[in-house]
Amino acid sequence: MLRNVYAALVHFPIVDKHGHLVSTSVTNLDIHDISRSARTYGINAFFLVTPIEAQHWLVNRIIGHWQVGWGSTYNPNRMDALGICRTAGDLGEVQSAIEELDGQSPAWVITSAKRYSNSIGYENMRALMNTPGPPICLLFGTGWGLHPELILEADHILEPINGPTDFNHLSVRAAAAIIFDRLLAS
Amino acid sequence: MLRNVYAALVHFPIVDKHGHLVSTSVTNLDIHDISRSARTYGINAFFLVTPIEAQHWLVNRIIGHWQVGWGSTYNPNRMDALGICRTAGDLGEVQSAIEELDGQSPAWVITSAKRYSNSIGYENMRALMNTPGPPICLLFGTGWGLHPELILEADHILEPINGPTDFNHLSVRAAAAIIFDRLLAS
Repeated sequence: MLRNVYAALVHFPIVDKHGHLVSTSVTNLDIHDISRSARTYGINAFFLVTPIEAQHWLVNRIIGHWQVGWGSTYNPNRMDALGICRTAGDLGEVQSAIEELDGQSPAWVITSAKRYSNSIGYENMRALMNTPGPPICLLFGTGWGLHPELILEADHILEPINGPTDFNHLSVRAAAAIIFDRLLAS
Repeated sequence: MLRNVYAALVHFPIVDKHGHLVSTSVTNLDIHDISRSARTYGINAFFLVTPIEAQHWLVNRIIGHWQVGWGSTYNPNRMDALGICRTAGDLGEVQSAIEELDGQSPAWVITSAKRYSNSIGYENMRALMNTPGPPICLLFGTGWGLHPELILEADHILEPINGPTDFNHLSVRAAAAIIFDRLLAS
């Protein structure tokens, strides 16, 4: 890939099952599973985005356990994977962090279980990532999905992942793994 | 696909980090994530394989919550996904269940993070699945992987999933999602 790739798991602004704006909780397994998948596919940094400071403390305590605590010697692969995991209060902070790491702001790429009129396919997205340009930041939702205000401001919206059935309720951990594989596998 | 596909998550016989034979615990999130991925990709049944009866009780209680309990109305998609999830004491029971569902024994396909001399690639496996023959049962390991006695008896061993890095420590939930996508996406 010519462009660096980042990923962010968004806990606010999110919609619940009624379409209401909510903030979701960070979960331990999202941290581990998505960090491991992101590290496998060469994602430069994986951001957990939540405005709730107590959750930053929780995430950093979990990361610390595997980075410098007992977990770092029990399972060094987790130390490696969680080394790319960071917290951010909002997408402005994600943007600032990427600007610091990469020298420019990212193009925001939304992932969604729904298809939009301007959705882009995986082959086209791979081709785009192999042209010169700004880094890419993939945004993943929690709860019942990213709030429309984020979707409207995205640079690109990836096509939903469909299997051969009409069931499309993958976990965000599964969807992230499949999207990394489709976009970044050699 | 010409052949029906099944999947099983194996909790015994498994190796731990020292290579010792162990039984691992069933986890709630494996049940949910892998059932949802399996349902998305048209897997006919997903088996949780453990000889520990208390874990069968636990799994069936979780499935029951989403099938007939409070969860069935709170989130009917979970009822749908968990409808393909079953428990089995060992692979003999998996074989019997598949024989009952499909009329014949499956070909056993091992998934592994390691490459073996007889590993088969994803394109070749897809081609094989599109030829007439017995159903396919994909076996996923937990802990530090499937015990060698299972690997030796497999009909096929899938190539490991490699990203563009040398890190290959995906969660089984992520690996299962990617493997279903590579083998079964339209």
